[in-house]
Amino acid sequence: MLELRLVQGSLLKKVLEAIKELVNDANFDCSSTGFSLQAMDSSHVALVALLLRSEGFEHYRCDRNISMGINLNNMAKMLKCAGNDDIITIKADDGSDTVTFMFESPTQDKIADFEMKLMDIDSEHLGIPEAEYHAIVKMPSAEFARICKDLASIGDTVVISVTKEGVKFSTKGDIGTANIVLRQNTTVDKPEEATVIEMNEPVSLTFALRYMNSFTKATPLSSSVTISLSSDLPVVVEYKIAEMGYIRFYLAPKIEEDEDETKP
Amino acid sequence: MLELRLVQGSLLKKVLEAIKELVNDANFDCSSTGFSLQAMDSSHVALVALLLRSEGFEHYRCDRNISMGINLNNMAKMLKCAGNDDIITIKADDGSDTVTFMFESPTQDKIADFEMKLMDIDSEHLGIPEAEYHAIVKMPSAEFARICKDLASIGDTVVISVTKEGVKFSTKGDIGTANIVLRQNTTVDKPEEATVIEMNEPVSLTFALRYMNSFTKATPLSSSVTISLSSDLPVVVEYKIAEMGYIRFYLAPKIEEDEDETKP
Amino acid sequence: MLELRLVQGSLLKKVLEAIKELVNDANFDCSSTGFSLQAMDSSHVALVALLLRSEGFEHYRCDRNISMGINLNNMAKMLKCAGNDDIITIKADDGSDTVTFMFESPTQDKIADFEMKLMDIDSEHLGIPEAEYHAIVKMPSAEFARICKDLASIGDTVVISVTKEGVKFSTKGDIGTANIVLRQNTTVDKPEEATVIEMNEPVSLTFALRYMNSFTKATPLSSSVTISLSSDLPVVVEYKIAEMGYIRFYLAPKIEEDEDETKP
Repeated sequence: MLELRLVQGSLLKKVLEAIKELVNDANFDCSSTGFSLQAMDSSHVALVALLLRSEGFEHYRCDRNISMGINLNNMAKMLKCAGNDDIITIKADDGSDTVTFMFESPTQDKIADFEMKLMDIDSEHLGIPEAEYHAIVKMPSAEFARICKDLASIGDTVVISVTKEGVKFSTKGDIGTANIVLRQNTTVDKPEEATVIEMNEPVSLTFALRYMNSFTKATPLSSSVTISLSSDLPVVVEYKIAEMGYIRFYLAPKIEEDEDETKP
Repeated sequence: MLELRLVQGSLLKKVLEAIKELVNDANFDCSSTGFSLQAMDSSHVALVALLLRSEGFEHYRCDRNISMGINLNNMAKMLKCAGNDDIITIKADDGSDTVTFMFESPTQDKIADFEMKLMDIDSEHLGIPEAEYHAIVKMPSAEFARICKDLASIGDTVVISVTKEGVKFSTKGDIGTANIVLRQNTTVDKPEEATVIEMNEPVSLTFALRYMNSFTKATPLSSSVTISLSSDLPVVVEYKIAEMGYIRFYLAPKIEEDEDETKP
Repeated sequence: MLELRLVQGSLLKKVLEAIKELVNDANFDCSSTGFSLQAMDSSHVALVALLLRSEGFEHYRCDRNISMGINLNNMAKMLKCAGNDDIITIKADDGSDTVTFMFESPTQDKIADFEMKLMDIDSEHLGIPEAEYHAIVKMPSAEFARICKDLASIGDTVVISVTKEGVKFSTKGDIGTANIVLRQNTTVDKPEEATVIEMNEPVSLTFALRYMNSFTKATPLSSSVTISLSSDLPVVVEYKIAEMGYIRFYLAPKIEEDEDETKP
């Protein structure tokens, strides 16, 4: 039997909004440590990893590890019916092929339960090794979202270059080129407004803006985002979720095409 | 000659927004008692009844009963041109085939008049007898609108079930089922936030959500809605209009289909 | 070399939003006096004239007169990437076929530069003689925008008639007619809310609402608009830009069609 009670139900609503564009169907895995998900996007280019630790739930009962195959769009439809202040409880009986989402209004005057069929989804769980990154940029998540959106109006890819002084986002398209430079800045009033750069060595990598823009759907979850870059590893774009976990997006850099690509 | 001056002109704007989706053309009937309308929706399933009593107008002159055939979309287009604080006057000369809407800004610096052609519309006025209902639910109109919208994302019909403890709205669709229960609750700060249930006997009826969602276009007119249910009568969904009248929507329940409906 | 630094960068963003719907490609002309543009709309019916005087820029360097051919949609795309509080600098090297827009955030923590290709555009500069107008109406720009939008829901053309008492906007369409009268009104709290009529002789002219509605895209630039009318001249719809200049739209009146137009 599974029963997970999350007082700040809006977090779960935001989680679904953050990943449903990227992933259609996925297994949610529940164990005593937490509620998690790992899934490739539908074109098998990006990877999403979600963790909501058991300590973050008001009540967390998970008698044995289970994996629930869920269509994320349908789950998002149901969660949209929860009020932003509602308490959400996820319930599943052992061996059941359904999951129930219960929404309680703060005053307890409105109680809703939504029951959804589960699916069988084949998936293999990838081990993601801890890695050392050449550079880690922490910046306001809204600024990162704005930059990805702005650059996508000019080009299809973004080059992210990190030096000690700052991080540069560049693109090139039919109508011209764009460069946006953010300087390291830690003398801000609120820590979430800081741009902090930890750099071991300079790095410059190219990514598809389409994916970066999908990742920024997680912006409402956290006021800052952390981007970890190494020349030989997928970038990690991480949004912390309150005190309870994270969403991490992984995306392999594009190999810079040869300047002579038009030659045979 | 007809001349009706309504200081709170925004009420008339909201009335048109509330009914123009359901009804294309209808007769507005003016008599000494008030300005009213009764019309079936275009698929002849739901009925709308509107009453604005003469006392609610600052000036109400109606020399003889007249019936004005109006295309509601066109009338709504014209009323959209009135400011929300404008005074609206409806004018028609005897025997004229046009009606004029006059909009005066509160400062009287802007005066607009919009003249619209009238139409001949055949309609029979149904007598709607006063009835006893098994259950009458009064609830916040925004909550009712939210529930109808949420359920429509899951299924096509809603079962409304009333017991002494509360009212339950249920639906079923391809992706799962949903139940939303509101408890009777009269200990609220503002009376319009109360959910009040008057019940003579329990009742459970099924309705098309499409129509319920159309009815909720009247939500801006009133902070609460009254739903009157009897197993042998159409439901009445009523929105009071300030001190002057109401919009009532009538919809026959769906006959519960046989469980064996796939059999020949 | 050209280098124009505009502290209130949002003005340039609004200028582009105001004219990009009407004009696709145009030459921006820079001289020691200012940054200007004159262009016909793509159907060669309306004319736009923009002036931003050099004094309005924090820094204005223009070594020699140059004319930069620009696709306004592309320029608008780039300017949309500037924050509303950003300082915008326009830069071009002599003989270069590109222009650079630099955006600096108020804190200087974010610096962006967008480079755009220039185009060759044939254009002839029309001399617009100063003229005497029969009537000049100054009114709140939002009110003018509202009236043009409202009337366009009823008809295709607007008749603007000015008398000493006020200005009347009229239209006629399939669903009826509309007249909106604004009275001269100078006793308002804020001067920009005034409607001021200077009239030498009464005038009544007809214009296409489609163009008038395009002109009102300039509404965010100024809280009032000035409409100058003469029976033998194009109307001038002028929006002042802060302390630095204006956008003026010119549109020839429609010749009133003969009442007997259906005759052979």
